[in-house]
Amino acid sequence: MIVIGELINTSRDEVEPAVKERDVEFIQDLAQKQEEAGADYIDVNCGTLLEDEPVAMEWLVNTVQEVVDVPLCIDSPNPKALRRGLEAHDGQALVNSITAEEERFNETLQILKEFEARVIALVMDDGGMPQGTEDRVRVGVKLVERLTEAGLDIEDIFVDPIIQPIGTDQQVGNQILAAIDEISQSCEGVHITCGLSNISHGMPKRKMINRTFLVLAMGRGLDSAIIDPLDERIMALLKTARTLLGEDAHCSEFIKAAQGGELDF
Amino acid sequence: MIVIGELINTSRDEVEPAVKERDVEFIQDLAQKQEEAGADYIDVNCGTLLEDEPVAMEWLVNTVQEVVDVPLCIDSPNPKALRRGLEAHDGQALVNSITAEEERFNETLQILKEFEARVIALVMDDGGMPQGTEDRVRVGVKLVERLTEAGLDIEDIFVDPIIQPIGTDQQVGNQILAAIDEISQSCEGVHITCGLSNISHGMPKRKMINRTFLVLAMGRGLDSAIIDPLDERIMALLKTARTLLGEDAHCSEFIKAAQGGELDF
Repeated sequence: MIVIGELINTSRDEVEPAVKERDVEFIQDLAQKQEEAGADYIDVNCGTLLEDEPVAMEWLVNTVQEVVDVPLCIDSPNPKALRRGLEAHDGQALVNSITAEEERFNETLQILKEFEARVIALVMDDGGMPQGTEDRVRVGVKLVERLTEAGLDIEDIFVDPIIQPIGTDQQVGNQILAAIDEISQSCEGVHITCGLSNISHGMPKRKMINRTFLVLAMGRGLDSAIIDPLDERIMALLKTARTLLGEDAHCSEFIKAAQGGELDF
Repeated sequence: MIVIGELINTSRDEVEPAVKERDVEFIQDLAQKQEEAGADYIDVNCGTLLEDEPVAMEWLVNTVQEVVDVPLCIDSPNPKALRRGLEAHDGQALVNSITAEEERFNETLQILKEFEARVIALVMDDGGMPQGTEDRVRVGVKLVERLTEAGLDIEDIFVDPIIQPIGTDQQVGNQILAAIDEISQSCEGVHITCGLSNISHGMPKRKMINRTFLVLAMGRGLDSAIIDPLDERIMALLKTARTLLGEDAHCSEFIKAAQGGELDF
């Protein structure tokens, strides 16, 4: 499982002022905590800052990379912000995200090639948000085909099937799970990731829903997730599911986590 | 999800003396608590009593049925105990279990037909315990074919893929999940159940493993489980997974459970 730590995002109440005020200590602390908790990428998103986003993104990348060893996930639909972030970034970054919307696809692809970045591919095209399983699979497979034809390594592509709220359509969980299954089988070597929390939008006990859906999705081929790695319960389930899915030789990481008190729930 | 409450089993320390001493209050309390917690069947097993098993089984069935409305799961490999239990039982019972071992199959089938009982079919034949996915699917599908040919309704059959410990083989989880998937797709209408706890045999943090595997298995077609319904955490995950798998119209059971404080983990 490739964990993308989601906490450095200016849509979160405490983060926006910290980025605006260039609070190095706050941001570095949040980055380090996520790395220590097991994040493989630290996501940085400052989209709420609008025209200040590109400059803030450069500052975020520099500030975070000063204190962590893992690479960053540069999270913006804005090509200018992506470019500033990638210019500042050392090593291979992950870009969040490209879509099959024609203009965004072409613009983002050029940036990906220029910086040899990995990418999260959202299953969305000029027709808008996906409906049902087939739509997700069609757009996802098409994106993988176009990106690999353009020269990207399939292992550098993370398809995101776009999570929608279970509260508004009780079949959306099954649709997403089936799409994860089909995309991972059709595109061998591709990664599948997602931002989980939208599944529980508008519902009570959101973390319980997010956690349970993570396990269901891992069972169908999800091998990455954009989550809060400081949520000990979700990380405990993630580690346990990994072990049960045969990704933990001799169960040694599970046993180590158990001994370290990480599974006491 | 069809929940089979597993607590009335003389292999459990507190239960054996209670059955030996015919402690009506203890057994009825354990039965009622499981029914209140959501059990659809109350399993009764007194196999440790050896030659006293048939008489104890009759007593258990009478004692439990005095206080619960749900049917019982008569749990024994011993035809005499099954028969005594079924004779005492009102309504349609579930028999745990039949296997494809030739002698046991024939003897148990006769009992099933005589009492019109439902049955748990363990994927085991005279070759012993199953190895890998294919073996489980072969024996499971064969059992369903033979039972339906003999006149059982497919909806009265619960295939149990036999859980083995993840600690001794890290691929066993994937093998069982794939078998659940294939059997549920090959035999439309059949139920899939399992006793979960063997998956965590010999490991620390057993409940975390059992719970996580339950969610993974539900995502692949498991629609019943033999569990402790008094374990609030496993029941919370079970309810949440049910909702996410589209079995809870308008998420109303989830919302009710959330309001009732059943999901506070």
